[in-house]
Amino acid sequence: MKSLLKTIDTFSFLDDLLEGYEASSGANFIDERRLPSVNSIKKILEDLLEILFPGFSGTRDVTSNNLIFVIGDLLSTVRSELTTQVTMAYKHKCDERTCSHTLCDDKSSSAVDTLLSQLPKLREILKIDVAAAYAGDPAASSEEEIVVCYPGLKALAIHRLSHELFKLEVPLIPRMMNEIAHTETGIDIHPGAEIAEGFFIDHGTGVVIGETTVIGKNVKIYQGVTLGALSFAKDERGDLVRGQKRHPTLGDDVTIYAHATILGDVVIDKGAVIGGNVWLKQGVEAHTVVTSEDRPVNFKRFK
Amino acid sequence: MKSLLKTIDTFSFLDDLLEGYEASSGANFIDERRLPSVNSIKKILEDLLEILFPGFSGTRDVTSNNLIFVIGDLLSTVRSELTTQVTMAYKHKCDERTCSHTLCDDKSSSAVDTLLSQLPKLREILKIDVAAAYAGDPAASSEEEIVVCYPGLKALAIHRLSHELFKLEVPLIPRMMNEIAHTETGIDIHPGAEIAEGFFIDHGTGVVIGETTVIGKNVKIYQGVTLGALSFAKDERGDLVRGQKRHPTLGDDVTIYAHATILGDVVIDKGAVIGGNVWLKQGVEAHTVVTSEDRPVNFKRFK
Amino acid sequence: MKSLLKTIDTFSFLDDLLEGYEASSGANFIDERRLPSVNSIKKILEDLLEILFPGFSGTRDVTSNNLIFVIGDLLSTVRSELTTQVTMAYKHKCDERTCSHTLCDDKSSSAVDTLLSQLPKLREILKIDVAAAYAGDPAASSEEEIVVCYPGLKALAIHRLSHELFKLEVPLIPRMMNEIAHTETGIDIHPGAEIAEGFFIDHGTGVVIGETTVIGKNVKIYQGVTLGALSFAKDERGDLVRGQKRHPTLGDDVTIYAHATILGDVVIDKGAVIGGNVWLKQGVEAHTVVTSEDRPVNFKRFK
Amino acid sequence: MKSLLKTIDTFSFLDDLLEGYEASSGANFIDERRLPSVNSIKKILEDLLEILFPGFSGTRDVTSNNLIFVIGDLLSTVRSELTTQVTMAYKHKCDERTCSHTLCDDKSSSAVDTLLSQLPKLREILKIDVAAAYAGDPAASSEEEIVVCYPGLKALAIHRLSHELFKLEVPLIPRMMNEIAHTETGIDIHPGAEIAEGFFIDHGTGVVIGETTVIGKNVKIYQGVTLGALSFAKDERGDLVRGQKRHPTLGDDVTIYAHATILGDVVIDKGAVIGGNVWLKQGVEAHTVVTSEDRPVNFKRFK
Amino acid sequence: MKSLLKTIDTFSFLDDLLEGYEASSGANFIDERRLPSVNSIKKILEDLLEILFPGFSGTRDVTSNNLIFVIGDLLSTVRSELTTQVTMAYKHKCDERTCSHTLCDDKSSSAVDTLLSQLPKLREILKIDVAAAYAGDPAASSEEEIVVCYPGLKALAIHRLSHELFKLEVPLIPRMMNEIAHTETGIDIHPGAEIAEGFFIDHGTGVVIGETTVIGKNVKIYQGVTLGALSFAKDERGDLVRGQKRHPTLGDDVTIYAHATILGDVVIDKGAVIGGNVWLKQGVEAHTVVTSEDRPVNFKRFK
Amino acid sequence: MKSLLKTIDTFSFLDDLLEGYEASSGANFIDERRLPSVNSIKKILEDLLEILFPGFSGTRDVTSNNLIFVIGDLLSTVRSELTTQVTMAYKHKCDERTCSHTLCDDKSSSAVDTLLSQLPKLREILKIDVAAAYAGDPAASSEEEIVVCYPGLKALAIHRLSHELFKLEVPLIPRMMNEIAHTETGIDIHPGAEIAEGFFIDHGTGVVIGETTVIGKNVKIYQGVTLGALSFAKDERGDLVRGQKRHPTLGDDVTIYAHATILGDVVIDKGAVIGGNVWLKQGVEAHTVVTSEDRPVNFKRFK
Repeated sequence: MKSLLKTIDTFSFLDDLLEGYEASSGANFIDERRLPSVNSIKKILEDLLEILFPGFSGTRDVTSNNLIFVIGDLLSTVRSELTTQVTMAYKHKCDERTCSHTLCDDKSSSAVDTLLSQLPKLREILKIDVAAAYAGDPAASSEEEIVVCYPGLKALAIHRLSHELFKLEVPLIPRMMNEIAHTETGIDIHPGAEIAEGFFIDHGTGVVIGETTVIGKNVKIYQGVTLGALSFAKDERGDLVRGQKRHPTLGDDVTIYAHATILGDVVIDKGAVIGGNVWLKQGVEAHTVVTSEDRPVNFKRFK
Repeated sequence: MKSLLKTIDTFSFLDDLLEGYEASSGANFIDERRLPSVNSIKKILEDLLEILFPGFSGTRDVTSNNLIFVIGDLLSTVRSELTTQVTMAYKHKCDERTCSHTLCDDKSSSAVDTLLSQLPKLREILKIDVAAAYAGDPAASSEEEIVVCYPGLKALAIHRLSHELFKLEVPLIPRMMNEIAHTETGIDIHPGAEIAEGFFIDHGTGVVIGETTVIGKNVKIYQGVTLGALSFAKDERGDLVRGQKRHPTLGDDVTIYAHATILGDVVIDKGAVIGGNVWLKQGVEAHTVVTSEDRPVNFKRFK
Repeated sequence: MKSLLKTIDTFSFLDDLLEGYEASSGANFIDERRLPSVNSIKKILEDLLEILFPGFSGTRDVTSNNLIFVIGDLLSTVRSELTTQVTMAYKHKCDERTCSHTLCDDKSSSAVDTLLSQLPKLREILKIDVAAAYAGDPAASSEEEIVVCYPGLKALAIHRLSHELFKLEVPLIPRMMNEIAHTETGIDIHPGAEIAEGFFIDHGTGVVIGETTVIGKNVKIYQGVTLGALSFAKDERGDLVRGQKRHPTLGDDVTIYAHATILGDVVIDKGAVIGGNVWLKQGVEAHTVVTSEDRPVNFKRFK
Repeated sequence: MKSLLKTIDTFSFLDDLLEGYEASSGANFIDERRLPSVNSIKKILEDLLEILFPGFSGTRDVTSNNLIFVIGDLLSTVRSELTTQVTMAYKHKCDERTCSHTLCDDKSSSAVDTLLSQLPKLREILKIDVAAAYAGDPAASSEEEIVVCYPGLKALAIHRLSHELFKLEVPLIPRMMNEIAHTETGIDIHPGAEIAEGFFIDHGTGVVIGETTVIGKNVKIYQGVTLGALSFAKDERGDLVRGQKRHPTLGDDVTIYAHATILGDVVIDKGAVIGGNVWLKQGVEAHTVVTSEDRPVNFKRFK
Repeated sequence: MKSLLKTIDTFSFLDDLLEGYEASSGANFIDERRLPSVNSIKKILEDLLEILFPGFSGTRDVTSNNLIFVIGDLLSTVRSELTTQVTMAYKHKCDERTCSHTLCDDKSSSAVDTLLSQLPKLREILKIDVAAAYAGDPAASSEEEIVVCYPGLKALAIHRLSHELFKLEVPLIPRMMNEIAHTETGIDIHPGAEIAEGFFIDHGTGVVIGETTVIGKNVKIYQGVTLGALSFAKDERGDLVRGQKRHPTLGDDVTIYAHATILGDVVIDKGAVIGGNVWLKQGVEAHTVVTSEDRPVNFKRFK
Repeated sequence: MKSLLKTIDTFSFLDDLLEGYEASSGANFIDERRLPSVNSIKKILEDLLEILFPGFSGTRDVTSNNLIFVIGDLLSTVRSELTTQVTMAYKHKCDERTCSHTLCDDKSSSAVDTLLSQLPKLREILKIDVAAAYAGDPAASSEEEIVVCYPGLKALAIHRLSHELFKLEVPLIPRMMNEIAHTETGIDIHPGAEIAEGFFIDHGTGVVIGETTVIGKNVKIYQGVTLGALSFAKDERGDLVRGQKRHPTLGDDVTIYAHATILGDVVIDKGAVIGGNVWLKQGVEAHTVVTSEDRPVNFKRFK
């Protein structure tokens, strides 16, 4: 064991580090079941996006001659790989005493098949989203540009997928999916948010949409918009109450301009328009424009 | 065809999905010519950045002994690969009836050669940008740090490249380039924006610079600044009018502090300083400081 | 030399480009020592994060059976690779006349060993950070979710590593590390910032924390918060004075809500709460809530 | 052009090297059309082998649920990629003056489609080859072992594919395919050889089968067997006559043991058995065993 | 299902191909359990060779400071990955009716642990093999050269590993391992062969060593040597009898020169020397030199 | 240290393994300087082959427009990477007491520059080799086919490179290069062999050419030919004498057919022809054909 002793000399702090892992409290993950892997989820999302928008990645030709094969093969691959990841997520959270793990396997297959069976519907919704983006941005020169270039559409497409898994109570993976979108686009949508078709996020960096947000049809928002919570309820032990409705509900046709902030479980009703930088903690009636009073600015000539 | 039938049973929704692709409307891309690929454009941008700042990627030694070879080989590679992508972009947009596609090939070669011939000029401009960043940020310890670490410089270098292609009316690719920069830096510059030398974006996350923005020399902006449009003109059919000047024009030596928003086709004249969080929909004369009146804040002791 | 002449014809601008590289001023890096490489630093950060949170990447099983080997091998790899990069950084900055470069080698080894010896302590601090995040966000369903999904934790973990190297005056690499985090999370922390344990950044996009910021225990901030400088001192030659304290100091238990901006070397004392969108250039006493007066908003029914 | 001159000093021999490339004679390939790429052909062969033996590579599950998609997608990929390579091969050989290159494109599509349409037949033949190998080797424990482990089967499968392209007079690519097999297995079959079903090569290293060899059904050969040419006809100018039948013809059910050599256009008739190390330049009648007279060996005790 | 019909038109042969897969006979692998993967086995062999000869791959520094970690991590990785592959191999061969597959899992773990526990012994044996090679080849300039460059040593090291799994009756994988060695070295050793220490194969291409061969200590053979079977026993149904001793037994200190062939279950006793190209189907007593009578050669002057 | 103890239990044999590494004798490589890496040498050979035959790899277009850049960049890359590897090789063999290692650095640079300066000459020689192959094989349809497909040419090109380094007494790397060729082609040439221009190896598998072989101009050999040593001289201590001339010398225009074996330091003089399977331990005069007497074969009809 001479090697070891020499080694321990080199990393004299190793013992402390190992003891830290062995402690029972906090962020320890030794001897637990393996977690789902972010890189696997990324690859699965790429395949799912290729199914939703075949040919748009520019990596291969998709024609009416090979369409059924390309899509069928992607579906088959996603089913196999996503089931593996979802099973890890269920087993990780599973209380071993009451589950034979066969239950976890069955729940995973079922969850993935349910997601896949929603793809035709999700694609129809996303086509409406694409059309809404094109109609809403004079800088867009074609619908292809929306699919290929707009971060808002990418974040939304990923959200529509992850939200299906969220509804099925798949642990961790929906959040991993939305954080992959957040990293790439700067748009942070919680997988719990319910978003109807025709949603358009322009530019997008800094957008935050909270877990219990509900968004109607044809809503349009800009960079830096926050749909957040106002304050957090605590239980009698002082712990946060999780799962309560605490974010806004937006009606159909609402528009929210850049950097506006709306907090709390309030209703912004059908057709309302919220101006840039507005700060709101109250509801807004339908067909109402809300603007900040023009903040007074001082102009001072210095030369 | 037993296999097939079994398969169709497994993915019962496949038929619906395929019918969705076959529909003529919306985001369909079957049987069209292949789109340019984001991954190829990424690789090309890496090579172009290595040409603009040889040695800075740290991936290889560039010395006066091999400089001409390294640069020459990168130029030759970029010319070949970018021409392929630009040709795809032109052909995709091409109306087959009036074009033999040889025209598309010729336009592509010409566009790429024009871009490459601008590289010496772009490099001189970027050297001024680097110097401006160093002069403007006390946290910067060297010009190398600017090139290696500053997201603002990266976004700007990519913009200067994409803007050349935008001027040549290359479809899609300029937007793809700027979205690659947006993803990496959180800075969203439309390739149409005209930006003179000595431009410095500090921190950068959340910056939005619209398509028809014009920026003079030695302008400095901070994170979260929006140079946006106020409202969109529509034609008699209610469709957006695309291409009109609708974003600000900044004179030389303008400074805009964090989270300020300037909307519409207004002129912020030479040397003006716009304070943080200011919200402006009007022009500003030269050598004028614009600040929000200090927003009143309440202080409430609670303990 | 016929080949060459033909080639020069093809790239007629090459001569100009080469002359630009040969110029002595500005962003030239020919014939200098190789810079550290961003891609190498990325790989090293992945390994360091795996040491801090073994098993969380989902790429392999870490059990009590292989823990010492996995950690030991990662430590050994990081030591070798990071020392190589740090040596490049020192040598690049080194004034050859007074240094035999052996000094640079020694300083590098010493810096890396110092960082590694801090890992047990950093891990204990990060466990407190994780617990703070779980306690502070009702949307979090487990501590694992914090580690796997929260960009704030990732940016903070990378900062805690880079800050150690910053204190050791390692050139360039601390900034490269924090920009890697910035790219991925939209959170821009300067490696110089001093941050105590229990720090939680929710959502995070657009957060900027300046070089001389000091943050106490159990501080919580939200997306878009800026802890910035107010104005930059210049010396008699008009050059920026670098290194001065010019950013805020936050006491323990401070909370700062989304998009608030605090500028200058001011003290926000223990337990203070700064409301969303507040714009502050002055200190705040302990246990004080600061809010903007509710900005007046206009409601206009339009239909 | 200072850079260049400095560079030329460093590689003083560069000028000589470049002049060598510019010379018109010999192995020069400058300014010609691009050759097919060995790496692309390797990838295509992997896909073709996966079509012929789905599931055997162990890289993915192939089930009756995804069979049609996996195979269809592989076929579609191979058609696209192989057509690209075959087009390069035709164009490289094409005499530009008489061909518009559209002809080359058409010939390529047609050649690849012809190859693909032979796949069902080739697969039936290869199933017979697998059964023959299992029947002929007592060390084989299953037919799967033949497909997964036997170099003879791999070389034969690749040959059956390349031979189809050889018959269609596709330039270069059939030879590239068989050399890929040669590198991996040590078995050198010329793509011109005609080989009926039930062929088994055991061990295989050193086997050489010449261009005009013809092999009947259920033939079995061992390592080191050469089916070669005896001498080469020359034309009146002293150049080799290419394309003449100059290699053996083997009838059905022939067996040739290790290291036997058969040279020239001779017939080894149905059922003949050629012993190990036999050296033959003449034909053999049906149902005849040919052995070397036992070569006399000397035994000398030395201790 | 229009897409499908169009597709089937394109690949008119697809139906035939699919029917071929569905047939019950022959090389079909649909709906079976996944086979072990050659690429995974290759990776595992690389790791095992790094354990046997740490540092020799030149891919990383192995020092007394990190030795225990590097080796421990490799062991842990190999145990996990090889167990996965061995389980696939057992399950594939498993008769489901009598096995719950838990048995397969247990057998796999046990087999891999047994192999790993033999590593210290195998390493001691391989050190003797290296020394024998150095002592036997005047062209070798160091023992490192043997480990780094000699294909004979690589084939032998892989064989010593696979032979352990063969003895444990692991299906398929031992053969896959030796074929990986065969591809790389041209040396074809069946995993069943029993080979004592001090074995040296020089050059190696074309060497074949059959399944039931037994080789004593300090044996030396050259390129092209075959240790094969003479004829195969068949049972009453005409099928080959598998598993019988049918290859040679070599005593200690035997030398066999290039291209010699020894066939059948004969004994070449201690210290015998078999000359190049000798063809033997009989045993040889100890300390005996066997040479072909010099084959008469004709010399004919032609000029 | 609980982790460690648990771990040691799992791998109970680890202690034995580590002790084996620590022993001073035999194949140990701990704490020595890093060896050159086979994978690096492979990459360097690919680059060198691209310099010798630009465009033939099919990976990129090489035209008179980019030729100087492509070649110059490859030269510059090879110089940097090969110098690193050669330095490792020298330092590994270096006796530290008499060398400051600066000497090793200098020797490496000098060796690599000498090799590179030979490239124009080597290319001229290889063009003669290509022409000789085309002239000698009726199955070859073009000189391109020789370069792209013939393993003999690849082995020879690599040998011509490695032989230059061998003459410069670079340790290990020449052998690594030729074993890379051996693995790919089955042709085993020792880097010490001296081979004049116009050399052609057809098929090649199993060819062995020993260290002190000398080969004249326009020599042609076939698969399985051995140019070997007869017996090895030993010194008074019984150790092999290394470095003595012990392999054949072939004059110009010699031809050796398949599987012939020539052993010892004998001269096969100008224009001699050695028949297939001939076994020779003596010299042959110029312009002489050597054939085995036709080995008598028995023909036995069995049906």
